[in-house]
Formats: sequence, structure tokens, C-alpha cells
Amino acid sequence: MNIVLFEPEIPQNTGNIARTCVVTGAKLHLIEPMGFRIDEKQVKRAGLDYWDLLDLEIHDDFKAFEKKYEGSPFYFMTTKSSRFYTDIKFEEDAFLIFGKESAGLPPKIHEKYKENRFKIPMIDNPKARSLNLSNSVGIVLYEALRQNRFPDMS
Amino acid sequence: MNIVLFEPEIPQNTGNIARTCVVTGAKLHLIEPMGFRIDEKQVKRAGLDYWDLLDLEIHDDFKAFEKKYEGSPFYFMTTKSSRFYTDIKFEEDAFLIFGKESAGLPPKIHEKYKENRFKIPMIDNPKARSLNLSNSVGIVLYEALRQNRFPDMS
Repeated sequence: MNIVLFEPEIPQNTGNIARTCVVTGAKLHLIEPMGFRIDEKQVKRAGLDYWDLLDLEIHDDFKAFEKKYEGSPFYFMTTKSSRFYTDIKFEEDAFLIFGKESAGLPPKIHEKYKENRFKIPMIDNPKARSLNLSNSVGIVLYEALRQNRFPDMS
Repeated sequence: MNIVLFEPEIPQNTGNIARTCVVTGAKLHLIEPMGFRIDEKQVKRAGLDYWDLLDLEIHDDFKAFEKKYEGSPFYFMTTKSSRFYTDIKFEEDAFLIFGKESAGLPPKIHEKYKENRFKIPMIDNPKARSLNLSNSVGIVLYEALRQNRFPDMS
């Protein structure tokens, strides 16, 4: 399974997500530019004492990522879809793609991948903020793993 | 759905979990003693601008909690179980109970509720830390909500 963070901004989120990737065997893809340097203390403290256990790939931009993994199953998580993430039939090599904390995914990606967008359902409350990015990743990733019967996990 | 944190220690975790509860309509139970004061800046910053949207109940200790909700379905999350959280058939009024960050649940609770313990599967790697508490809550809560068809959510 692959987790993709599009231009992440908050190091502690990426650190926590890295930790989730290590315990699940998921590969983490980070798409530049990011709001922090990958060697920052905060990332390491939040995420792991063991960056060396992480399967990590950094991409110069979305185009580079897209080109390298063309033809793979891409699923974009966004509050702007009406379909639930639980409707996806997750392949073992699926790419679960998450937008940046402040602004989500850019219009270009929304247009191009209209049919590949899914949301995490929430209570409709205009005053409530949405889920934290790190939690969103955990929720969708574990649904994908559940459908695949938690490969190599116990 | 009910989320129960047993003696939580890290304010940012509780703040993030509070945020998850607000967007799902879950009730949050906190069991004293905690490692922080509930009005601390860190909790509010991590969690919500809107504590007033949170359905929160604070219990003096585990006994008080146990007594008040006797007979309700209790599910304890711990790395010490061999059964997966996905094996639970979650009732709408289930209590999902999580131990403290540093030490999990105490031996007394493990003994008394042996049959009600479940784990989140992970890759077997002695060097990897386990999932962050806030992520664990999100993963189990969303599985419970999925089974109940995301009541009042969209």
C-alpha cells in the first residue's frame, strides 16, 4: 500500500504518518515543495526514532510522481467528493493520496481525477474543523488493509 | 459511540481525539488522573477551537466510570490481545477504551476484562513504535462507524 502526501506543511503530521507507515509496511511518498525540511527534529520526534525503517520516496512535484506511477490505482481523499472511502475496492498496490493541510488538493488535480475522489464521512457541522491529516491517513489506510486481510500483520 | 481514554498523559493527543469525536458525534470520556489540565492551551490548540461542540464526560477514576456504565458493551484496545478490532460487532452505544500512552491499561483491567480485549494489527518489528494514540482511536472509531453505516454523517 502507498501513502502519498501532496506538499505537506506540518512536520508533526508527516512524522506521525511516517510512524503509521512503518507499523503497517506502507510506503510513504512525499511531494515537494514541503513546509519543512525532512531532517527536522519535529518530524523525527513525532514520527520515529527509526527513519531507517521507513520506505520513503520523495518526488520533485506532482507531475514527476504521476509519470513514474502512471497506470497505478490512484485514490484522492478530499472533502469535495460525495463518495465514501469505504466504497473503494483497494488493490494491494493502491496509492492513497492526501492534499496539504491548509488547502487540500489544487483545482488541476480535482479536474483531472474527478472520478477518483473520495471522502471520509463526517457530521455536518459548519463550526467543526475536519479530521487531522494524520488521522485521516490512518483511517483510510486501515480500511485498505482490512479489505486486504492485513497482509503480513498480526 | 463512546471513546474512553484511561488516564491520558499527552494533551495534544487528547486534543486531536476530541476533534475526531466532534466530527463524528462520538462522546468523549476522560478518566482521571490525567497528565494535564483540561483547560490547557495545548489541548485546545491541537483539538478544537470549539470545546463547546464536544460531548465530554470526566470520571474521577475507572471504578466510577465502570459503575455508571455497567452493562454497556466495553471494548478494550491493547497490543496484548490476539484478536483484531475488526472482529468486533460494534453496537451503536459501544465504549471503545484506550490505555495511557506510556503504559497502556493496568493489570487489574487486563484480568477483569480478558475477553473484551482487541488489538490493531501491525507489522511485527521490535524496533518500531506502535501507532500513536490519536491514530488508534480514529482507526477503531471509523471501523465502528462503518459497521453502523456512518449514522448522521455525510
